[in-house]
Amino acid sequence: MNYAIIRYLIGWMLGVESVFLLLPALTAVIYQEPVVLAYVGTAAICLAVAALFCHKRPSNPRFYAREGFVTVALCWIVLAVTGALPFLFSGEIPSIVDAMFETISGFTTTGSTIVADVEALTHAALLWRSLTHWVGGMGVLVFMLIILPLAGGQTIHLMRAESPGPSVSKMSPHMRDTAFILYAIYFGMTVLQIVLLVIGGMPFFESVCTSMATAGTGGFGIWNNSMAHYESFYLQGVTSIFMILFGVNFSFYYLALSRRIREAVRIEEVRLYFGVILGFTLLIACNVRDMFGSFFESFHHALFQVASIITTTGFATVDFNLWPAFSKALLVLLMFIGACAGSTGGGIKCSRVVLLVKSVKKEMQYLIHPRAVRVNKMDGHRVPHETMRSVNVFMVAYLLIFSASVVLVSLTCEDLVTCFTAVATALNNVGPGLELVGPAANFGFLHPLSKIVLMFDMLAGRLELFPMLLLFAPRTWRRSR
Amino acid sequence: MNYAIIRYLIGWMLGVESVFLLLPALTAVIYQEPVVLAYVGTAAICLAVAALFCHKRPSNPRFYAREGFVTVALCWIVLAVTGALPFLFSGEIPSIVDAMFETISGFTTTGSTIVADVEALTHAALLWRSLTHWVGGMGVLVFMLIILPLAGGQTIHLMRAESPGPSVSKMSPHMRDTAFILYAIYFGMTVLQIVLLVIGGMPFFESVCTSMATAGTGGFGIWNNSMAHYESFYLQGVTSIFMILFGVNFSFYYLALSRRIREAVRIEEVRLYFGVILGFTLLIACNVRDMFGSFFESFHHALFQVASIITTTGFATVDFNLWPAFSKALLVLLMFIGACAGSTGGGIKCSRVVLLVKSVKKEMQYLIHPRAVRVNKMDGHRVPHETMRSVNVFMVAYLLIFSASVVLVSLTCEDLVTCFTAVATALNNVGPGLELVGPAANFGFLHPLSKIVLMFDMLAGRLELFPMLLLFAPRTWRRSR
Repeated sequence: MNYAIIRYLIGWMLGVESVFLLLPALTAVIYQEPVVLAYVGTAAICLAVAALFCHKRPSNPRFYAREGFVTVALCWIVLAVTGALPFLFSGEIPSIVDAMFETISGFTTTGSTIVADVEALTHAALLWRSLTHWVGGMGVLVFMLIILPLAGGQTIHLMRAESPGPSVSKMSPHMRDTAFILYAIYFGMTVLQIVLLVIGGMPFFESVCTSMATAGTGGFGIWNNSMAHYESFYLQGVTSIFMILFGVNFSFYYLALSRRIREAVRIEEVRLYFGVILGFTLLIACNVRDMFGSFFESFHHALFQVASIITTTGFATVDFNLWPAFSKALLVLLMFIGACAGSTGGGIKCSRVVLLVKSVKKEMQYLIHPRAVRVNKMDGHRVPHETMRSVNVFMVAYLLIFSASVVLVSLTCEDLVTCFTAVATALNNVGPGLELVGPAANFGFLHPLSKIVLMFDMLAGRLELFPMLLLFAPRTWRRSR
Repeated sequence: MNYAIIRYLIGWMLGVESVFLLLPALTAVIYQEPVVLAYVGTAAICLAVAALFCHKRPSNPRFYAREGFVTVALCWIVLAVTGALPFLFSGEIPSIVDAMFETISGFTTTGSTIVADVEALTHAALLWRSLTHWVGGMGVLVFMLIILPLAGGQTIHLMRAESPGPSVSKMSPHMRDTAFILYAIYFGMTVLQIVLLVIGGMPFFESVCTSMATAGTGGFGIWNNSMAHYESFYLQGVTSIFMILFGVNFSFYYLALSRRIREAVRIEEVRLYFGVILGFTLLIACNVRDMFGSFFESFHHALFQVASIITTTGFATVDFNLWPAFSKALLVLLMFIGACAGSTGGGIKCSRVVLLVKSVKKEMQYLIHPRAVRVNKMDGHRVPHETMRSVNVFMVAYLLIFSASVVLVSLTCEDLVTCFTAVATALNNVGPGLELVGPAANFGFLHPLSKIVLMFDMLAGRLELFPMLLLFAPRTWRRSR
């Protein structure tokens, strides 16, 4: 294990974080809130550690998969600890476990909160929460690819561990170019949403927070009743659309921008994604028809909730915990399906679902005609055997972590639907669950043990499981052969 | 598709069924119950159809996988329909859907009942219910292997579709010998249990019903409170032990009887099976300690419930729906794990769990050392790539059927725990679920649509999913190339 380079990378990341911390500090100054020092102090600490970690460049640039996974996992844990400091310093979230839960929920773009009354938080805290979503959304480490002039390092391993989905499509031959393009799209879409929300009458500060939480598919609300606060169908509608847009595979935008429209619309994952959104929205809209004044209204709320859950954002315009069981079951299913790979969303990912369904179809074909040739194809290309294996293993690891988590949470939580959906929402980085952790509730009441399990799940979900599992495998830390 | 041979095989099976139907008829005569004609009549119908189907031997003995899967699926459906007739004729279960649900639950060795008051049923009906478990347990079609002198037919395909578990271990070079040995063990153990129960003071008739339901890992009770009726720890303990024994891979007994003890104890699946039973029993015994007078008592009931659920039998000595969430979560997890492959139990099967956990371990090793050699081994043998693939595809198909079923059941059932566990208990062939379908409740109140979904799940679970899926795939019925 090349500890020097891991330390160096974590140092860089802390440096970047210290810059971001100045934004909530500035917000506190503008709104004359007495929490400026909490953010400036944390920034200073981050900067000091960064300087300590980075003053010597690592002599050995060797950077293999093992280092990549460990770096990614450690980075997120360090982010969680340092990002929680402002909440502790300002006293807004006095418990360490709670402050870390909130920060991990932010950086992993989950959006589950332990804060019962978010409206009592300072503007600085609200901005910091939304900012963690935005920063977390595209992955702090893809980020580092742009900034880090780490000659000789094999940055591909970082990318693989970080980017959501089964495979890193090399959109551009150079990783840094890829990262730049992704960021341009991400930044541009965020700004566009802010503009559209401001046009609709939402105050600037609220638009910024909402848009950052949408872009990262995070879902921290700035009102206790989340997006239900804005009764305007325009504002909720714009948010619906942008949630859906941020859940699309960014390769789609890249291809569309390169005028390769035909290739773009042929991406099977994106087709499934839009198909599922449309189908589930219609089913739910019919199911909850009686709860609203018109079909348009029920369709509007069904679309918002479906978009929020499939993209794993987690905003809500209604308390869908009060919806019929059929709608709730569909929403829970959406949590698992998740957004597209290569988006900021979480969950199992549509591309995996496509591959898994195809594998079942192929098997059935094989059982009927044992001598038939079996080749799985996606988007017109043959899917390598390795990809299928890794998708299958992902599912198994997913089920193991999921089952173990539900059992552990059930130790201190008596309602099984709460246990199940709390884990589902954490592992898929959604935000709200059902019953005691429904959209009108929060995670504050949970036992610290359950919170720790859910923190692990949020991190595991965000990092595609394996970096977190490897962190706890003794073999990872053994000396190389 | 060779329809002639499918018809011929179904005919044979109906012939066998007509013989079995004479047992409840005899019971009715002994107990002077007015339902004799219901069973004799059904037997006559079965025999008549059998004669019609079998009077001409099929000219073409070609029998491929496709025919095998279709035959198996159709056989079970025909069994469900004909087996339901006595309930309808006698008027004991007047609804067609309910009578079919009860029969499918019996033959698939699930044990979920729609009868609210089983104590009001006739002895004949009780015996027929238990007998369906016993017959279903080892698979009606393995059965046919003994009887059918189908020269030239490739009986291996029947076996593959029928026997529970990822692979058919060829215990003996000749299939018929294998079947004989399996049946000798099965029959011997059933008789042994009857004897031990009678020694413990259980009336003969009840011992026969209980033992047949145990052997098939079925779980239809003959009392409304299932095995709680027998307060004797001896009777409950004997049943615990026999449930566990019938959940063991029968290869274990075959090897043990052949004095290959070392090979027998090396079967990893069996080790996992006993390990899980011990571990889960201890965890639950501690968790429910306060609900019983002594640790021994809580251990006794924990063991019974664990044995009942992991073997997918479904008897109960207590209403575990009243247990704490932790115990309930563990029991639900056990439903999914299931018994050993090559036993009469259902669920995902311990051998699959072993292989799946190993695949995750291997992947982690691979991520750390990409050049490491990856070979999955089980019981000291290399696991072929094909087996891994089929296990993975099984899991995917399982998750798809499971999710679709929960959503469909939620259409007419408002409690999500009920929906989830009803499907879990059906697909894993267990018997009781939680909440409204808990051990103290029954499935009678469900909407017919939900019952139909659960019937499909019970059949799919029993037949290792694919025969049922293939039955509904248009490709299956297309003309061969």
